[in-house]
Amino acid sequence: MSSSNTTKLWGGRFTGSVDPVMMQYNESLTFDRVFYSQDIRGSIAYARANTHTGILTQHEFSAIERGLKQVHKEWETNTFEIKPEVDEDIHTANERRLGEVIGKETARKLHTGRSRNDQVATDMRLWLREELEKLEEYLVDFLKVIAARAEKEIEAVMPGYTHLQRAQPIRWSHWMLMYGSFFASDLQRLRELKARVNQCPLGCGALAGNPFDIDREAMAKELGFDGLIMNSLAGVADRDFVVETMQWGSMLMMHMSRWAEDLIIYSTGEFAFVQLADAYSTGSSLMPQKKNPDSLELLRGKSGRVFGHMAGLMMSVKGIPSTYNKDLQESVEPMLDHVKTLPNPMS
Amino acid sequence: MSSSNTTKLWGGRFTGSVDPVMMQYNESLTFDRVFYSQDIRGSIAYARANTHTGILTQHEFSAIERGLKQVHKEWETNTFEIKPEVDEDIHTANERRLGEVIGKETARKLHTGRSRNDQVATDMRLWLREELEKLEEYLVDFLKVIAARAEKEIEAVMPGYTHLQRAQPIRWSHWMLMYGSFFASDLQRLRELKARVNQCPLGCGALAGNPFDIDREAMAKELGFDGLIMNSLAGVADRDFVVETMQWGSMLMMHMSRWAEDLIIYSTGEFAFVQLADAYSTGSSLMPQKKNPDSLELLRGKSGRVFGHMAGLMMSVKGIPSTYNKDLQESVEPMLDHVKTLPNPMS
Amino acid sequence: MSSSNTTKLWGGRFTGSVDPVMMQYNESLTFDRVFYSQDIRGSIAYARANTHTGILTQHEFSAIERGLKQVHKEWETNTFEIKPEVDEDIHTANERRLGEVIGKETARKLHTGRSRNDQVATDMRLWLREELEKLEEYLVDFLKVIAARAEKEIEAVMPGYTHLQRAQPIRWSHWMLMYGSFFASDLQRLRELKARVNQCPLGCGALAGNPFDIDREAMAKELGFDGLIMNSLAGVADRDFVVETMQWGSMLMMHMSRWAEDLIIYSTGEFAFVQLADAYSTGSSLMPQKKNPDSLELLRGKSGRVFGHMAGLMMSVKGIPSTYNKDLQESVEPMLDHVKTLPNPMS
Amino acid sequence: MSSSNTTKLWGGRFTGSVDPVMMQYNESLTFDRVFYSQDIRGSIAYARANTHTGILTQHEFSAIERGLKQVHKEWETNTFEIKPEVDEDIHTANERRLGEVIGKETARKLHTGRSRNDQVATDMRLWLREELEKLEEYLVDFLKVIAARAEKEIEAVMPGYTHLQRAQPIRWSHWMLMYGSFFASDLQRLRELKARVNQCPLGCGALAGNPFDIDREAMAKELGFDGLIMNSLAGVADRDFVVETMQWGSMLMMHMSRWAEDLIIYSTGEFAFVQLADAYSTGSSLMPQKKNPDSLELLRGKSGRVFGHMAGLMMSVKGIPSTYNKDLQESVEPMLDHVKTLPNPMS
Repeated sequence: MSSSNTTKLWGGRFTGSVDPVMMQYNESLTFDRVFYSQDIRGSIAYARANTHTGILTQHEFSAIERGLKQVHKEWETNTFEIKPEVDEDIHTANERRLGEVIGKETARKLHTGRSRNDQVATDMRLWLREELEKLEEYLVDFLKVIAARAEKEIEAVMPGYTHLQRAQPIRWSHWMLMYGSFFASDLQRLRELKARVNQCPLGCGALAGNPFDIDREAMAKELGFDGLIMNSLAGVADRDFVVETMQWGSMLMMHMSRWAEDLIIYSTGEFAFVQLADAYSTGSSLMPQKKNPDSLELLRGKSGRVFGHMAGLMMSVKGIPSTYNKDLQESVEPMLDHVKTLPNPMS
Repeated sequence: MSSSNTTKLWGGRFTGSVDPVMMQYNESLTFDRVFYSQDIRGSIAYARANTHTGILTQHEFSAIERGLKQVHKEWETNTFEIKPEVDEDIHTANERRLGEVIGKETARKLHTGRSRNDQVATDMRLWLREELEKLEEYLVDFLKVIAARAEKEIEAVMPGYTHLQRAQPIRWSHWMLMYGSFFASDLQRLRELKARVNQCPLGCGALAGNPFDIDREAMAKELGFDGLIMNSLAGVADRDFVVETMQWGSMLMMHMSRWAEDLIIYSTGEFAFVQLADAYSTGSSLMPQKKNPDSLELLRGKSGRVFGHMAGLMMSVKGIPSTYNKDLQESVEPMLDHVKTLPNPMS
Repeated sequence: MSSSNTTKLWGGRFTGSVDPVMMQYNESLTFDRVFYSQDIRGSIAYARANTHTGILTQHEFSAIERGLKQVHKEWETNTFEIKPEVDEDIHTANERRLGEVIGKETARKLHTGRSRNDQVATDMRLWLREELEKLEEYLVDFLKVIAARAEKEIEAVMPGYTHLQRAQPIRWSHWMLMYGSFFASDLQRLRELKARVNQCPLGCGALAGNPFDIDREAMAKELGFDGLIMNSLAGVADRDFVVETMQWGSMLMMHMSRWAEDLIIYSTGEFAFVQLADAYSTGSSLMPQKKNPDSLELLRGKSGRVFGHMAGLMMSVKGIPSTYNKDLQESVEPMLDHVKTLPNPMS
Repeated sequence: MSSSNTTKLWGGRFTGSVDPVMMQYNESLTFDRVFYSQDIRGSIAYARANTHTGILTQHEFSAIERGLKQVHKEWETNTFEIKPEVDEDIHTANERRLGEVIGKETARKLHTGRSRNDQVATDMRLWLREELEKLEEYLVDFLKVIAARAEKEIEAVMPGYTHLQRAQPIRWSHWMLMYGSFFASDLQRLRELKARVNQCPLGCGALAGNPFDIDREAMAKELGFDGLIMNSLAGVADRDFVVETMQWGSMLMMHMSRWAEDLIIYSTGEFAFVQLADAYSTGSSLMPQKKNPDSLELLRGKSGRVFGHMAGLMMSVKGIPSTYNKDLQESVEPMLDHVKTLPNPMS
């Protein structure tokens, strides 16, 4: 795998070749390809807005839109052919392919006045908003299940514990609704957070904004954002929306972990007032009498993992000056793993 | 220092003495004395509410209120005499002293139906609410300063950086308002958080609620809480309000750190477009030509410290079952240090 | 995808089916397949030792060895066919396939007296030892490069900084060897750590040891371990070797990050006494004059990421009782990502 | 409290006054006074070595030594009078007082060629070495207790658990020695670590070394160091010895936490095969039947706290360029709290 800088958008004044090791180190398509749809939708909105700035004719826009839709379909049908020697990331991959589909000249115009800095922030925010919506729905369902069971099993009584010592008798529903109240707070926080995630950075450019006074509100509206990030430097420097999501996710999982911990203890042979369904337990080849609460232990273990994402990202962001620095690329994989590890319909 | 269990409220069935090492290990008055005022206000509200349950006569309440006000004054005037052999924590210290002032018999009635579990949660939430109010005010002032300077110095131009390489010229105000937008988000988060902190756990008892159906709404109102924690188990098990505060504080300080980092770099001899005031710099005995941005470096260093509080507390809370476990006592000192380390009028 | 428990080794007394969601949640083959070689070598050593306990005849051993070598070859040639409905993890996958190759009856004997608990610990330690050896070699090479350049460029002088302010002139080599001394400490720590990683848990069983008094020393020797984990409970409960590796890796990367930070600052237009090779920089499509130190920024960003692995795993391990709990499975993926993210020949 | 820079060693070219808020922010004597003895011993060694460089006459040295010993006695007898308007830190406080005792002229000579950068690193390393020695002794004693009890109680049998489900019967001693083996590894790590802590940075100066070619080996020997930090930049830039201590302490406490967790579960009414001594338990005022394992819960809670110190410090150190930056001052208080929080004879 070798690469001349002349094939790169930014390669003009560079005389040497990029070390293949560096290319591999820098490459992000392996993981940021999950944003293919967000990237394409963002590009369409950007192109449409550029018909008003005069950068694109209506005819060029139509070609770009048609081309991007085809690229989208290729991703969806798993027929997009990646060219590792030039496709650094999802943005360059999509643009390279667009050029093949509609011709390089028109395709190149798409990026006018835009930077990968505002582009990637847009992709990430769109993707995250959509994941948070799924998580919200899922959490609402979970709360309904808790409420329904608390109502149905209102007569069941159990010991209440402090210091893991029997303290006073309580209802099973009382216990369940304690977690219900924790998860309800998580839901409240999620909704507050989502409003901050769902802000549009498109048009912030590399850092100093869009030189053609593009209609940012129109783009934000088309993409379903709640508002604009007004300060263009902030728009590209900021990964707070990921940090805050991870803080939220870590708190959620802290609750999940305590809930799992309680159930693991209550389902021991000694406590034995809860029995885990066979469907969520495993056994032991050496000790056939056993029934292990693997599902709950995994949940508890995953709580540490999602905390780790947050701790790691905060360390990275804390240590950098403004505005965009490539360190921020290291927020992507942890974000993907974080969201995937939360209990959600995808996982 | 030695202690017989018979002098402890809970010492009845214990036959051995408490190891002095254990007493010292368990003791929290050294640090939870900062809650003296909150603890006393909480007790007065609790006692007042108990005139309606029939636990206290109006006459007993008056004695308790008068006694507690005297204890309060002793703390304020630094004349409260701590008895280390019996004063485990601020709650027992206040109650012991109250007994000396108004007589043990009446004083003991104060605690009827209450537990240190709901008491300490109440104290902490009251204390934290008051600190968050100060921080809110401080942050608003800070934002005003930023806005005013951005307006006044609108003509100043500086290089904008990405990757710490000169990118495009920007206004100094543009840069300042980037941080303004980060701190404005912090303010927004603070307000959301404060509403969750300011919920009343008093009346949750040890875990299962108050046996005398005390009027929780009246107590919450008297203490200035926004609402009640409805689930009594949650009220004593929960330190999320501290965790969330620390997540917020870590994010705030992450911004402060990046801001300090920018200014440290901009005030180097090489960049040199910012000059730190003498009043906030220090020199070197060996190298008199130097002017060191100590204040900014300390701010940056403190960012790590407040993150550490959050990471440590999340680890502790994550690892425990419901409801109250003594591990939660270890949230107090980190909370105090956290708030003290944030840039605020106290520090 | 559906699965009856009767096809699982441990499924005997379970009446219900496993929920497919649970299967997917529990499944680890997706990532623990990287241990295929370690798992097979461990199994061969275990089988050989069992010819002395009388569990296996020499003839059976030969069949098992031959079969496992074939399975090994299938993994290496990418022809191993995974059966997702039964292959939970690398251990069951290998054993299932062995049964197909040499017959189920003999294949089943392989696992006698062994548990997946000691098996997975063995796999992980073998894998990690081998990675640490590569990292050691790599670090030695790196130190040699530093030393050689420090010698060669001994005449180059640069400003020495404290507080990022010019302090006293120093040699470039002096600066380089500061990092050399940090990395030399990392090397020293790595060697100490490696000795603790390279201890053999095979024969610890599920927790209480091997019932057939298997010759653990022989197995350890065959597998190249430095010694035995003597306490069988420790052998299965312990992931300290991963935690310690991650503490080490976080420290190493903390050094890398400071080194990168220095070079990023020194290669700014303002400092400008270091110039990054084109081969490790990138440019900007919007700003052709720029040369961005992406490689260094990525290194700095990855430092946060590896710290996150450590923080997350410590949180998980801290929160569990002895001995083996399924939470420990969540150490595997972070370990793999940790090692992959360290600067090493693989990455 | 006000302060003119002319009274500061480094105040020469500064024209404005230091803001009192800045003085308070910068001040460290409140906590670094614990190093008074190390600071004085370091100064005596430094002064003695300077009789050979010609900086000090033998007569001046004698005056300095005598004066420092008196200052030492004042600290020990609690008669040292702090002057908050000039005593920024333990170094300036000691030197200011020395001047009062033996005359300013001679006292000022003490600091010739030394910087607070190497001085504070020396103080911290000496202090930490001494604490680690106590911890080592304590850990050895603890291991002896474990071994003795394991031998004495070898006949006691208990259930062994995996997944917190009864697995196989084991000896109580087997369980105890599992933790013994973890703590033995902690001891091994402590010894390796101690050797790295106990390296002498004195003579590194502000960053570029000592201008008078002071005999560093003699100083190191006098102060009981195992060796020298050869690279002077490393000597002042480095807080790895604190980070590594905290990594070690976090691992130790992770073990303590699991041990406490086991005992908390085993001493529940449901498991009930361990009974906690009254001397280390507490009761409940509301529920007299209870016996709460507070001591173990505190131990478990403190585990999170010490992890927090480590996480916070790593974040701070990770984010700074070489060499000394004031951020490093923020390592001191967490270090003190870390060591105090570990189970040790002081706490």
